[in-house]
Amino acid sequence: MKADFTRRYRMSASHRLHCDAYSEEENRAVYGKCNNPHGHGHNYLLEVTVSGPVDAETGMVMNMVELDAVVRDEVVERFHLQNLNLDALFAREVPTTENLCRAVYRLLKGRIHQARLKRVRIEETSNNFFEYAGEGAGENGPE
Amino acid sequence: MKADFTRRYRMSASHRLHCDAYSEEENRAVYGKCNNPHGHGHNYLLEVTVSGPVDAETGMVMNMVELDAVVRDEVVERFHLQNLNLDALFAREVPTTENLCRAVYRLLKGRIHQARLKRVRIEETSNNFFEYAGEGAGENGPE
Amino acid sequence: MKADFTRRYRMSASHRLHCDAYSEEENRAVYGKCNNPHGHGHNYLLEVTVSGPVDAETGMVMNMVELDAVVRDEVVERFHLQNLNLDALFAREVPTTENLCRAVYRLLKGRIHQARLKRVRIEETSNNFFEYAGEGAGENGPE
Amino acid sequence: MKADFTRRYRMSASHRLHCDAYSEEENRAVYGKCNNPHGHGHNYLLEVTVSGPVDAETGMVMNMVELDAVVRDEVVERFHLQNLNLDALFAREVPTTENLCRAVYRLLKGRIHQARLKRVRIEETSNNFFEYAGEGAGENGPE
Amino acid sequence: MKADFTRRYRMSASHRLHCDAYSEEENRAVYGKCNNPHGHGHNYLLEVTVSGPVDAETGMVMNMVELDAVVRDEVVERFHLQNLNLDALFAREVPTTENLCRAVYRLLKGRIHQARLKRVRIEETSNNFFEYAGEGAGENGPE
Amino acid sequence: MKADFTRRYRMSASHRLHCDAYSEEENRAVYGKCNNPHGHGHNYLLEVTVSGPVDAETGMVMNMVELDAVVRDEVVERFHLQNLNLDALFAREVPTTENLCRAVYRLLKGRIHQARLKRVRIEETSNNFFEYAGEGAGENGPE
Repeated sequence: MKADFTRRYRMSASHRLHCDAYSEEENRAVYGKCNNPHGHGHNYLLEVTVSGPVDAETGMVMNMVELDAVVRDEVVERFHLQNLNLDALFAREVPTTENLCRAVYRLLKGRIHQARLKRVRIEETSNNFFEYAGEGAGENGPE
Repeated sequence: MKADFTRRYRMSASHRLHCDAYSEEENRAVYGKCNNPHGHGHNYLLEVTVSGPVDAETGMVMNMVELDAVVRDEVVERFHLQNLNLDALFAREVPTTENLCRAVYRLLKGRIHQARLKRVRIEETSNNFFEYAGEGAGENGPE
Repeated sequence: MKADFTRRYRMSASHRLHCDAYSEEENRAVYGKCNNPHGHGHNYLLEVTVSGPVDAETGMVMNMVELDAVVRDEVVERFHLQNLNLDALFAREVPTTENLCRAVYRLLKGRIHQARLKRVRIEETSNNFFEYAGEGAGENGPE
Repeated sequence: MKADFTRRYRMSASHRLHCDAYSEEENRAVYGKCNNPHGHGHNYLLEVTVSGPVDAETGMVMNMVELDAVVRDEVVERFHLQNLNLDALFAREVPTTENLCRAVYRLLKGRIHQARLKRVRIEETSNNFFEYAGEGAGENGPE
Repeated sequence: MKADFTRRYRMSASHRLHCDAYSEEENRAVYGKCNNPHGHGHNYLLEVTVSGPVDAETGMVMNMVELDAVVRDEVVERFHLQNLNLDALFAREVPTTENLCRAVYRLLKGRIHQARLKRVRIEETSNNFFEYAGEGAGENGPE
Repeated sequence: MKADFTRRYRMSASHRLHCDAYSEEENRAVYGKCNNPHGHGHNYLLEVTVSGPVDAETGMVMNMVELDAVVRDEVVERFHLQNLNLDALFAREVPTTENLCRAVYRLLKGRIHQARLKRVRIEETSNNFFEYAGEGAGENGPE
């Protein structure tokens, strides 16, 4: 028996959307007020989904305590109450929520062994969210 | 890198569930009080999901401003604060939320080119929702 | 020991905002698209608050089953899946949510004896809500 | 035209996480305070998704009244306001939410014929949820 | 300048509604399935409101870290993942949510000095909640 | 007949909690990671409540279009997608949400004449919110 287990986490952070390869005008055209040089911020709602067989004895896909420890150490401690633009992961790419999804996915991928990391989903505001399921995502992935 | 981007929109509209091919009794049996001739209404919560590669420069699947413009022009302006039964799209089919999903999908399909329209999801009430992913939907579709 | 007990109910209904005393132009100026003659609708989220001493034996302000029965019989059965404009209570006044709050309050006032009906609150959409606490509402009322 | 239809139900129940094959120490290590012998409880939010062609006349995947009747009879009546550990379905396995998903899926599978039972999803708290799509779930399943 | 500051906490617990002074029949009549001897449970959403002047330097009514510590030590540690009926506070009264509100209020009242404890509000399910503001609650209290 | 009308608005902004009158150590002690010099951010959920008689003809406390225009012009345009610390209103006080409530209240107070501005409530995260009802707030105010 295989099942999916999803856990929610919350991170409040700031960011500025700005692409170094663009001119000031291009940045404003692409990002609008999100290009404001002093930044703005969000309460990011992060959902991490792991998938795998349900252990016949524990009845679990993966122990929640273990997942919480990994996500706290690798992701929440890193981004919560921070400015995303200053993180090394965003030194060369814009901290859009698409890119934040991938960053979170990569930070977690090598650290979760009890089940398969299936998907990272982040709500940026109550009106939009983003999902990333790794490259080569096949039948269950976003593409 | 491919990702999904979903955006939420809200539309308040009225409708009456009534099938012209049915008798009065059949309509009441199938639709119950939703067949009331004077209609009732809902706050529809619409989610539009687009999928595609994340642009290496902008960090986006699709610019939110562009998606908002298309959905506003094609869908929200059309249905918000209206009676769905009077819309030409429902001249020959019942404005159930299943059919509303398909109508929204078709209105958007030809207008979104920056990414692939993946799915339309509509919450009719806080206790039910519907999803449509186009015909021939394969591995990622509803069937 | 006194406490407040609030219970939520949901009603989907349609309405048209139109004041008979106004001209067509005035109606459009005041109500905008909500004046559309064919109506639109909402999922109304109703909250009924009763207040009173907590019974020393039952530990309750009022039995939930009894409150549910009154609200179902007097309010939900009356408005759910209906067109508000056709209700006798709105024969002479516009079915705005302010007026719907008062109508619900009056329907319940004489039927709840186990505790004091303190307030009726209705969310019309996820972005607006209205509260009515009866006339002469003093320290706990909306005014 | 195929679509998905999802309906939400709510059940309040108690459970204790305890594996008979484990020692006291192992149980505490695996389940922490959830192993407390006197149990604790949750408001489970259940989502049942059915999938299938939209009927050309009714405009529905499946009549909501029929789905509600099956879920009420087979699932809500059985688990709501109960202690899950005492249910025969959990005589030999731990009532984790993973296992509860499968139990609900099996109770419904043979009773829904109007459409295909696609997925059962249960929120245990506002911070975690679980999904089960049957064994051999292929392209649409959790694995 | 005075303001209110409210903080949310979550506790999952089980309880059985049963009044020792009542017969079996009376208990079933009053509490219905909530009288089931094996109990059931809820995810309680607790809101603690404190009120007071905003400190001119810190800009705060009360430091959130301090409030969290008190509520965690006095309330969440005590009730989360427990059976309420076994708590000494419910040895002589039924663990309804009305009584739980008062228990939480009393546990906090003597421990919060930086601001005035104004109100305790608990959601038992997504459809009902209870509020308690202390005895002799005047203009701001529930009665 | 008097009623309350509340409208919700959303603003995403960044801030840094830092009191100039404090040393580095004091700032860290009081604000923790929220004192991080590069700031962080939130999705602020703003609720503006106005109170007054319901107009006998329009059935409204205040026209929603008019309230939206004032709040957009005075508040949302000013703070949405900005860094609060750079706003002149926070030149001399810390942009805590308590102070943001008061700033919003003052910006709106002189601009709303159709009804009485009763209360400003801001959710900073899904776990905390703040309310301000003006100075000298009596029976309906937070103190």
